Amino acid sequence: MFESAELGHRITNADYDREVPVLRARLLGLQYDLLAKASFPVLIMIGGVDGAGKGETLNVLHEWMDPRYIVTSAFGEMSDEERERPRMWRYWRALPPKGRIGILFGAWHSDPILDRVAGKTSEAELVRAAERIVRLERMLVDEGTLVLKFWFHLSKQAQKARLTALEADPKTRWRITDTDWARFKLYDKFRKTSELAVRRTSTGHAPWTIVEGSDPNFRYLTVGRAIAEALQRRLADATPAAATQPLAPPAPPLDGRTVLSTLDYRQALPRKDYRQALEKHQGALNLLTRHRKFRQRSAIVVFEGMDAAGKGGAVRRAVWALDARHYRVIPIAAPTEEERAQPYLWRFWRHLPRLGRVTIFDRSWYGRVLVERVEGFCAEADWMRAYGEINDFEEQLAEAGGIVVKFWLTITQEEQLARFRARETSPFKSFKITPEDWRNREKAADYDRAVCDMVDRTNTAIAPWAVVAANDKYFARIMVLRTLCERIEAAL
Amino acid sequence: MFESAELGHRITNADYDREVPVLRARLLGLQYDLLAKASFPVLIMIGGVDGAGKGETLNVLHEWMDPRYIVTSAFGEMSDEERERPRMWRYWRALPPKGRIGILFGAWHSDPILDRVAGKTSEAELVRAAERIVRLERMLVDEGTLVLKFWFHLSKQAQKARLTALEADPKTRWRITDTDWARFKLYDKFRKTSELAVRRTSTGHAPWTIVEGSDPNFRYLTVGRAIAEALQRRLADATPAAATQPLAPPAPPLDGRTVLSTLDYRQALPRKDYRQALEKHQGALNLLTRHRKFRQRSAIVVFEGMDAAGKGGAVRRAVWALDARHYRVIPIAAPTEEERAQPYLWRFWRHLPRLGRVTIFDRSWYGRVLVERVEGFCAEADWMRAYGEINDFEEQLAEAGGIVVKFWLTITQEEQLARFRARETSPFKSFKITPEDWRNREKAADYDRAVCDMVDRTNTAIAPWAVVAANDKYFARIMVLRTLCERIEAAL
Repeated sequence: MFESAELGHRITNADYDREVPVLRARLLGLQYDLLAKASFPVLIMIGGVDGAGKGETLNVLHEWMDPRYIVTSAFGEMSDEERERPRMWRYWRALPPKGRIGILFGAWHSDPILDRVAGKTSEAELVRAAERIVRLERMLVDEGTLVLKFWFHLSKQAQKARLTALEADPKTRWRITDTDWARFKLYDKFRKTSELAVRRTSTGHAPWTIVEGSDPNFRYLTVGRAIAEALQRRLADATPAAATQPLAPPAPPLDGRTVLSTLDYRQALPRKDYRQALEKHQGALNLLTRHRKFRQRSAIVVFEGMDAAGKGGAVRRAVWALDARHYRVIPIAAPTEEERAQPYLWRFWRHLPRLGRVTIFDRSWYGRVLVERVEGFCAEADWMRAYGEINDFEEQLAEAGGIVVKFWLTITQEEQLARFRARETSPFKSFKITPEDWRNREKAADYDRAVCDMVDRTNTAIAPWAVVAANDKYFARIMVLRTLCERIEAAL
Repeated sequence: MFESAELGHRITNADYDREVPVLRARLLGLQYDLLAKASFPVLIMIGGVDGAGKGETLNVLHEWMDPRYIVTSAFGEMSDEERERPRMWRYWRALPPKGRIGILFGAWHSDPILDRVAGKTSEAELVRAAERIVRLERMLVDEGTLVLKFWFHLSKQAQKARLTALEADPKTRWRITDTDWARFKLYDKFRKTSELAVRRTSTGHAPWTIVEGSDPNFRYLTVGRAIAEALQRRLADATPAAATQPLAPPAPPLDGRTVLSTLDYRQALPRKDYRQALEKHQGALNLLTRHRKFRQRSAIVVFEGMDAAGKGGAVRRAVWALDARHYRVIPIAAPTEEERAQPYLWRFWRHLPRLGRVTIFDRSWYGRVLVERVEGFCAEADWMRAYGEINDFEEQLAEAGGIVVKFWLTITQEEQLARFRARETSPFKSFKITPEDWRNREKAADYDRAVCDMVDRTNTAIAPWAVVAANDKYFARIMVLRTLCERIEAAL
């Protein structure tokens, strides 16, 4: 893997001086094209061995292009706000919007390799981490991001020579610390481990470019040209790289039996029992979220459901049990301009709670496989891949201590009709009913199918769905509260 | 001040039960109006003595209104990301956008009072903090925010009774800790201190409402009604509360001598000297930003200037001296949708650097008193008040360790014309010149006047302007670098 980067590649100063002005003008022109079109973001990842000129290359890129439209992030120790969220949260914060170039310095590839070299993790764990990286980058590419990855390599001899040279020069001595030499001793292990990681995370859509780091001229030109080539190709392409063609969408079951059709919609609760149960479960939920152990967890609660199924009422009964200082309800409507310039999951990542907190999403990332699917707001390939992306996302939430609870509130067609009519005639509720609601109703069969597919594909052990028959509001609200209590209790 | 809140106010349950349904419907309706219009944000501040029902009132407000459109923030210990910025940064992060209600629980009023009670600060410091709060709230109100402040009060006896009662009830015992009793011992001091703070921060545009906290019915209705009244008045008002009528804008000096007219535009530097000076100052700047002491500071650098004055070139020469991992350039163009829903300084607060970092603003908050003033994008009253607001902002940056450096790059009319013409004919630079540039040129006199007023009003000891004659690019770039070095060196 690294052999070609140990050949002692060199570019003479004469060649370098001839090529650089042309390359700079080209890169700058492409950067302004990218900015003007603003149709996709560019993500440049920089990784590799110490002393191979990563930092210098970064500075040269800033010099060659317009630094105002480059967003560079280097990742050192995590801040406490970062530590309380999934590992990937800090990287999601750093993603560039459409039209900009983001450079991530030592991002998601670093920790898995360093942890393995330090003996903190097993090889199996490294492989697993690599799998996830592949899935993440696949998703970014499918969302339109141009991902360019550069791995800077040095042979053992070359690294030693470089560290020695840096140390000998009074101007650069400060850069070499004991840590660098300690890490040099682990060179062989680092090489072997990163070989595995680089191999496993090099894919057709986001391959690593291995760059020999010993000659500055060579490394700058290699990286600069690769960026120019990739940018030019992509900008010339009117349509983004075609996503993998998905299989035909799942067919409904032959016998028509689904999670929705087999639900008992007659379940109900008398008002008297409701009052009692409400008080009991709200009390329990309050205690659970104040539990000592909950301070090291968080809860992410998703409410989805049919129009007029009583989602709002259920959300409100749930939050009344909570201290207003510790929860937040995020209503999901059309994305803002800043959100539209990012992958679709970005707007949910930005609202993830710290430890000890509850975030309730009133509608959620499932819009992708519900309304966007049914209304054709995204391509079939996009919503087909979303199931896996969502499962990956929720897995990360769970691993970071998040308790993920998801509700689908459903009512029968007859009940919905009755509620729509009641809303229309009530002066107080008429604002709740719009022509869109009636239109959605006509597509009931499509929505049903989307819901069944969604539950089939995203009902996981770590983030299960609760499908709630909501013809009776009292029954539905208590079921929501009871489920919340059970899930949190089981997690603590 | 607090006497009226020690009278034992009470509302009977019968009255309460009769009024609440009406009030809830009214609040909810107003909240949806606010949301639909989205023309201003509502900020509700909650402060006061322990045990006076602040938290319960907050929960009741969430219950009465739609919690999806309320953004509540409680402020405990600072996170490390917050500690590395000005004190107010955490509150700016929590401001609600237009159309939403933000509730701040123990925000900017808390620390000054608690610090004073704990004897950490003098009374003069408390008064100074109160001054600043008044200025901040004045700015928010001028920006359109509806600010409602509720101070919850209990007499000493009532507080004791309340703490004892909470402690006796097994359901609420957990809420009372030793800290509460320790703070109770300081009741008199707390009362005296908060009396001063409340008095000093109660203004016509953002007065405190003192709420007696002993009777739940009374406190909920008092707060709920006050919110409904204020919302209704403001929503009925087509135009926001008229800002204070400003004096006539400053007249230009009678003899025509200004910071611009007295500048020596002939200053120049030969290319050979430039090369040498560039290397020398870039080296010095690099060392300064890697200085041990700089890790506890940050630099906020503002670049403003005439069209074609060479701002971009100067920015690039400056950043080449820096490590790309430690600086960020923020180009300021039209605000995004999320930024337009906030006070105009919000978009700059969000980009403030952590310690050890450099943030360069390519155009800045001075747009308010330059382009917005000249083009009439904001009212005269708005840009007239901006000078003071900007000085307050920069003072906060400086106090948090920020080194604020501001450049105005200026060229003569003849030089600008020559550069415009050169740009038009250069195939590589023609994108840099637009019809807008020609239009701006026609308003040169207005811009000059705006620049002179800006420098006169915001050239402060903590954040001085460097007015750079930029007819000669080499001279200008070196002057920028040298000024940066001098300012940072002086600060370290």
